[in-house]
Amino acid sequence: MEIAVLAYDGMTALDAVGPAQVLALMPGARLRWVAEQPGPQRTDCGMAITAAHALDDVRTPEIVLVPGALDVRGPANSPALQAWLRAAHATTAWTTSVCTGALILGAAGLLQGLRATTHWAAMDALKKTGAEPVHERVVREGKIVTAAGVASGIDMALTLVALIAGRDVAESVQLGIEYDPQPPFDAGSPRKARPEIAEAARRVLTTRRP
Amino acid sequence: MEIAVLAYDGMTALDAVGPAQVLALMPGARLRWVAEQPGPQRTDCGMAITAAHALDDVRTPEIVLVPGALDVRGPANSPALQAWLRAAHATTAWTTSVCTGALILGAAGLLQGLRATTHWAAMDALKKTGAEPVHERVVREGKIVTAAGVASGIDMALTLVALIAGRDVAESVQLGIEYDPQPPFDAGSPRKARPEIAEAARRVLTTRRP
Repeated sequence: MEIAVLAYDGMTALDAVGPAQVLALMPGARLRWVAEQPGPQRTDCGMAITAAHALDDVRTPEIVLVPGALDVRGPANSPALQAWLRAAHATTAWTTSVCTGALILGAAGLLQGLRATTHWAAMDALKKTGAEPVHERVVREGKIVTAAGVASGIDMALTLVALIAGRDVAESVQLGIEYDPQPPFDAGSPRKARPEIAEAARRVLTTRRP
Repeated sequence: MEIAVLAYDGMTALDAVGPAQVLALMPGARLRWVAEQPGPQRTDCGMAITAAHALDDVRTPEIVLVPGALDVRGPANSPALQAWLRAAHATTAWTTSVCTGALILGAAGLLQGLRATTHWAAMDALKKTGAEPVHERVVREGKIVTAAGVASGIDMALTLVALIAGRDVAESVQLGIEYDPQPPFDAGSPRKARPEIAEAARRVLTTRRP
């Protein structure tokens, strides 16, 4: 099963690597990291991720995974990337995004009229793409699966593995990566965070987002 | 605050990227990915992570983060890497590992007589390094903090951010990456997984591990 993971300069590393690590453990999975310009793509974690493949090297992947970034204008406004995304989506089994990766799917017109999710601070931007924003961790609409912010990509990928390979395989992957989350605090969503923390985070994210 | 993230061929990508994403959001953090041979390091997710720095470029980091791999013999047996690790540890504020990264710390003699943790399938190997293996998600012994398998690095890094920058900052980072885990199954530890799933996973991991 060929899985195309989109990479681009400025991407949020965990958006891509969380679900990639899960999918890589699915028997038969073959991950291909693709980029408009193959080679190293800067991330927001102080390192680059090297995508070995050009977009045209992987034209008919069974899964497409689109990670987000603080600023997605590059991939959202690239005619070549958007054309690849639309063409790949025509034949995928699953088209997926994490975080503001949904805005890139949206820019390609793939979310028009569909329920979808994204990072909690990007819901308004998602709405502008024609999607119907939903405050859920993982949203499935036919073959399109969108995940909320950054860390939610792991939950999304486990859901996907269960849909593709069954629950036993998904649980075995979960055990393999010891995904038994025990966050020291319970502040991972705006509904759970203390108001002053949420307000400060919203301010920072709004400042840094275009 | 200078944070050295060790990279090496064959590394488990999420071991490094999970905590790196958390630490990168801590105000003042400066992540430096280091490798014995700077440049792209193959991961188990179909892509390479590019470490820009040689070990000697980062001699006195305040935090060292050592990720694991299915096979850690390379970094565990490299005299240059082990010498760097021992020297860096002498002046770090925090020396940390995720998953079988603990075996690399152990090979350097840093865990002798100390409580530590690692991936659930690597507890015996950890014991052989002189550590006292503990089945906890995050284990702190003085300035050494070890995390369990792969995904536990995120919990470890949030714990670390709270210790360094306080609880408000840690919660704000948790909210920023929307770390509000909702795994579709509850199979992330051998104590929770169904016995047949745990047995199968143990078999696979034992086969692939040296």
